[in-house]
Amino acid sequence: MKLAVDGMGGDNAPQAAVEGALQALESFQDIEILLYGHAEKMKPYIKEHPRLTVIHCEEIVEGDDDPARAVRRKKDSSMTRMLEAVTDGTADACVSAGNTGALMAGGLFKVGRIDGVSRPALATTLPTLDGQGFLMLDLGANADAKPENLVQYAIMGDIYAKKVRGISTPRVGLLNIGTEDKKGNELTKASFELMKELPLQFEGNIEARELLNRVADVVVTDGFTGNMVLKTIEGTAGALFDMLKEAFTSSTKAKLGYVLAKDGLRTLKTKLDYSEYGGAALFGLKSPVIKAHGSSNARAIYNAIKQAKIMVEHDVCATIQHTITKQ
Amino acid sequence: MKLAVDGMGGDNAPQAAVEGALQALESFQDIEILLYGHAEKMKPYIKEHPRLTVIHCEEIVEGDDDPARAVRRKKDSSMTRMLEAVTDGTADACVSAGNTGALMAGGLFKVGRIDGVSRPALATTLPTLDGQGFLMLDLGANADAKPENLVQYAIMGDIYAKKVRGISTPRVGLLNIGTEDKKGNELTKASFELMKELPLQFEGNIEARELLNRVADVVVTDGFTGNMVLKTIEGTAGALFDMLKEAFTSSTKAKLGYVLAKDGLRTLKTKLDYSEYGGAALFGLKSPVIKAHGSSNARAIYNAIKQAKIMVEHDVCATIQHTITKQ
Repeated sequence: MKLAVDGMGGDNAPQAAVEGALQALESFQDIEILLYGHAEKMKPYIKEHPRLTVIHCEEIVEGDDDPARAVRRKKDSSMTRMLEAVTDGTADACVSAGNTGALMAGGLFKVGRIDGVSRPALATTLPTLDGQGFLMLDLGANADAKPENLVQYAIMGDIYAKKVRGISTPRVGLLNIGTEDKKGNELTKASFELMKELPLQFEGNIEARELLNRVADVVVTDGFTGNMVLKTIEGTAGALFDMLKEAFTSSTKAKLGYVLAKDGLRTLKTKLDYSEYGGAALFGLKSPVIKAHGSSNARAIYNAIKQAKIMVEHDVCATIQHTITKQ
Repeated sequence: MKLAVDGMGGDNAPQAAVEGALQALESFQDIEILLYGHAEKMKPYIKEHPRLTVIHCEEIVEGDDDPARAVRRKKDSSMTRMLEAVTDGTADACVSAGNTGALMAGGLFKVGRIDGVSRPALATTLPTLDGQGFLMLDLGANADAKPENLVQYAIMGDIYAKKVRGISTPRVGLLNIGTEDKKGNELTKASFELMKELPLQFEGNIEARELLNRVADVVVTDGFTGNMVLKTIEGTAGALFDMLKEAFTSSTKAKLGYVLAKDGLRTLKTKLDYSEYGGAALFGLKSPVIKAHGSSNARAIYNAIKQAKIMVEHDVCATIQHTITKQ
């Protein structure tokens, strides 16, 4: 299988992207990588490898580029050419840690939607206390969603959880502001009625308070709410870690306490380490398009490539196509 | 001034409610408290006080009672009679830690909306890293909101921040999934356009990630999103504290580390202590109706009573009425 990687996307590019790609080539004997990016800039990090092809691109899509315009205008950018490789069949899937909006716009307009999917969704696996994680979608591909969209998100999430995460009967929950059946806003109330008819393990409404306790394997929500919740988790965790750091440096005694408790605290940090969970995938496109976190290190890129590989292997896109058509 | 207190509301009632009321009477010489509740059940905690009147009520609104029905049917409940005391002018404001939905329904149907306010909002002060806190509304009074509602929330929040929290020029932000002006869903995009015309310090869109850094003094959002974000903050903080506890008990060394760092960690917990921030207020009603947290201790009830007192003193409801009418 051939995987296209954007060598220039993300805060730590090109180093993290190149090193992540090389690590993936080491680990997986059945992949070839097409690495798109500025040859000169990537050169210091590249090692020759029989299954690595470097494709020079003159341009770079920057983090603050206007998404739609970036994909349209920067024709010789690593992101655009990586997407085109998927579109024309040169590659089976692609991975980028670059501009999220541009990758979504490019995925939609170049790779294209699966027939019958009205809106693609951005999905990622978030960590839980038990270390298993849960899949959440949509994280912001569409700020305004209809009940019919949420139904498709549930179907796509269910397929992914089965195929990629190996959960035989994923528990699918609807994110809501109460667990009772009639709770919520117009969108969640209508979605609830449709989702309970689906041929999957629907757990009903679940609350944000319980997310990290893995109350469901797949959590369905509209892109506005999903993005809001994701950023709230990040912000709260970040703020608490900052306060913790302050608490541990408030006195010599506290500093010594930190030294003693360090190993336990490190385990905590590892559990919450997003780089182990791969990237966010755009569900509903004809081929897998993976968005690695903007601050990805080589390990995170490696995991995003692994995720793309598994999606290709298990034919996730074809299964979504098939299931949506049957609906 | 006369304040009505629900002696039977909340997980720790009647003890916490009664003790909180007594503490408030000690601290504030200018208040009288009308304590509604089951006389027999409250008796063990009550001390006679010249400014305390106990009014026996036979019924109790339970946490799982249907909100609208509870207020309509349980006519001799402490919550209903407390609300009626405000309605008929016997009391100037009221405080309950009981069933949120019932208190909102009762507030709306008995105390009534201020003329011109189309939807009341539930508002509370949430903690920030700098210990100052910010006001957020709506936290769930209305799951579906229109841009016009958010505009009124902004006006009401601005008045409260000025009058009760003493901030001369509160920075008012619109909670959104990006900081750029054109970001968001249909609701936030339309609200942004209306809010920027308001005669207040509008900070534009703010992100959930930055909430705990006090990026604004007043944060405006619809009730679905507000409730979702509140529960996400609670859930994330709770999960991290659980993990922290685990980390600190993972080895003898870690346990010793905890003992040494304890003081610093306690400061952290105090900063995040909701009981210091008072309760949630229903904005847009003719008189102050304060909802204390369901798990309130006496300290939290005391602070909720203090909040009611300040709202009465500063004539917050009349100012809202006046400002909304001018709009």
